[in-house]
Amino acid sequence: MNDRAAETSHAPTLHEIDAAATRIRPYVHHTPILHSRSIDQDLGAHLSFKCENLQRGGAFKFRGACNAVLSLDETAIAGGVATHSSGNHAAALCLAAGLRGARAVVVMPRGSSAVKAAAVRRYGGEIVPCDPTQEAREGTLAEVVAKRGCHPVPPYDDYRVIAGQGTAARELLAAEPEIDLLVTPLGGGGLLSGSAIVARALLPKLRVIGVEPAGADDARRSLAAGRIVTDVVPRTVADGLRARIGQLTFPIIQCCVDAVVAVSEESIIGAMRLLWERMKLVVEPSSAVALAALLAGAIDGAGQRIAIILSGGNVDLDALPWVAGR
Amino acid sequence: MNDRAAETSHAPTLHEIDAAATRIRPYVHHTPILHSRSIDQDLGAHLSFKCENLQRGGAFKFRGACNAVLSLDETAIAGGVATHSSGNHAAALCLAAGLRGARAVVVMPRGSSAVKAAAVRRYGGEIVPCDPTQEAREGTLAEVVAKRGCHPVPPYDDYRVIAGQGTAARELLAAEPEIDLLVTPLGGGGLLSGSAIVARALLPKLRVIGVEPAGADDARRSLAAGRIVTDVVPRTVADGLRARIGQLTFPIIQCCVDAVVAVSEESIIGAMRLLWERMKLVVEPSSAVALAALLAGAIDGAGQRIAIILSGGNVDLDALPWVAGR
Repeated sequence: MNDRAAETSHAPTLHEIDAAATRIRPYVHHTPILHSRSIDQDLGAHLSFKCENLQRGGAFKFRGACNAVLSLDETAIAGGVATHSSGNHAAALCLAAGLRGARAVVVMPRGSSAVKAAAVRRYGGEIVPCDPTQEAREGTLAEVVAKRGCHPVPPYDDYRVIAGQGTAARELLAAEPEIDLLVTPLGGGGLLSGSAIVARALLPKLRVIGVEPAGADDARRSLAAGRIVTDVVPRTVADGLRARIGQLTFPIIQCCVDAVVAVSEESIIGAMRLLWERMKLVVEPSSAVALAALLAGAIDGAGQRIAIILSGGNVDLDALPWVAGR
Repeated sequence: MNDRAAETSHAPTLHEIDAAATRIRPYVHHTPILHSRSIDQDLGAHLSFKCENLQRGGAFKFRGACNAVLSLDETAIAGGVATHSSGNHAAALCLAAGLRGARAVVVMPRGSSAVKAAAVRRYGGEIVPCDPTQEAREGTLAEVVAKRGCHPVPPYDDYRVIAGQGTAARELLAAEPEIDLLVTPLGGGGLLSGSAIVARALLPKLRVIGVEPAGADDARRSLAAGRIVTDVVPRTVADGLRARIGQLTFPIIQCCVDAVVAVSEESIIGAMRLLWERMKLVVEPSSAVALAALLAGAIDGAGQRIAIILSGGNVDLDALPWVAGR
């Protein structure tokens, strides 16, 4: 393991995303790209779904966490890694830390999903509980970092993480270079910004669109305002997309993304169910926003070749939204 | 389309299964083979899952139906095709008939699953209702065949169908020839018999095991008795495995399969849920019997390389067994 990347002070280039791909290749799944003739017929377009729900840890998050962990030098990794995500990044970081025999500490607000906590434990992570406020999360993480010497790995606002997330689009565009439009979910912006860098470098004419829930549309508002807005209180079933757009991801999105659109809760749940029924894929609500935007007409994709990244499949099977909603 | 196979009076050989693979190749999905490190760890074995739940129509059944429909000459196909399956074969046959612009008529007992009926209609099939008895189903089908000139395509007891089903194992063994054990679900026996023919021809030392629900274990009883037993009343959540072993499939299973084992309803539902949670795959209960047999210890696979065919993913998302069972 002597290919550690130095921490960089600039957004990753295609070169750095390719280096990330090489670094993580032995550990990540090269996920399949699947198609559905019946959804194609419904939409009058040709869709390709990059199935990151089939990634290790059940989400694309393992790519970024893996790249960050493998990029740390021996001194940095010796103290372990830490984060305060309560979602897919937490489990992904624990899984990645295990690759180097390192400790992973997850600061998790009391009342977090039992399913997510179980995943952290299954991957050997240690949970440090805290109060469910942003301040408590950040404060507790700072304490863990200071007292225990853990290296913090943020869920998205980190260039190593962004480079790792970009490897999914890299695989997608290598396999299907003829696409017209790339659509990804948008929460903190790690997946979208990494994907957009790849798209701009490889296929400058490719349109790149991010989709967020209307109930967590801080990125759309931030783009309109020209600065990150902080007054959006996220309310959405898509738990992976409640995060605020990042300081590092926002400028990449401003510069490399064609549009950001928002979709309703109802259309997210409908698209999620369609993916389960027609494609036989367990996807979480966050994964469904891109298809939801096409089905709802928020993106016009008629006649086009469209690639969608299905971001993850970690969902509580005892609390499916169409069952709970009845 | 001048590669029609003559109807044969002998069980398909590898040569005929290869001919079927060539015939159906433009129309079927070459389904992915997926792996789960966490399930491997739980079992202490290396598992490969051939994902026929991701096949067109949501099940391996499209392979056999497609081969049968493409094998018919112009005169035979002119009158359309018919069957009395109420399950995955019915939808698969409608989809296959559409490839040749032919009519498909499905005799379906009143009270059949609304989801299955909707799939038949979505693929352009015509439903002829009948009483929910075996006699009514066969009688109504005979009437459709006689009066309307449809060609009957049975769900499994047909050498063209068996040859088509064998193409899934053919793809699997071509991709992963190093396996020790092949496990498939067992209902009417089409998938198991086609798979066993391929295994025997390609890898004589490969063990082949069929798994059926304990509540529909007519094949196990039939093997013990040395003849097809007809007094098993199937009671199982695995609706795809309620069919009785066939006249044509039974001798192939007697001759080419190493063992048939049975699993409880509880273990089927548990394995199904594990496939959803860990592998993010929507599979129907029938698909889960092979993994259930390994998890329950009905098959000893410790330390081995094991391939499983996940047969289908057509399930009513409003009636999941772990929700209904609470």
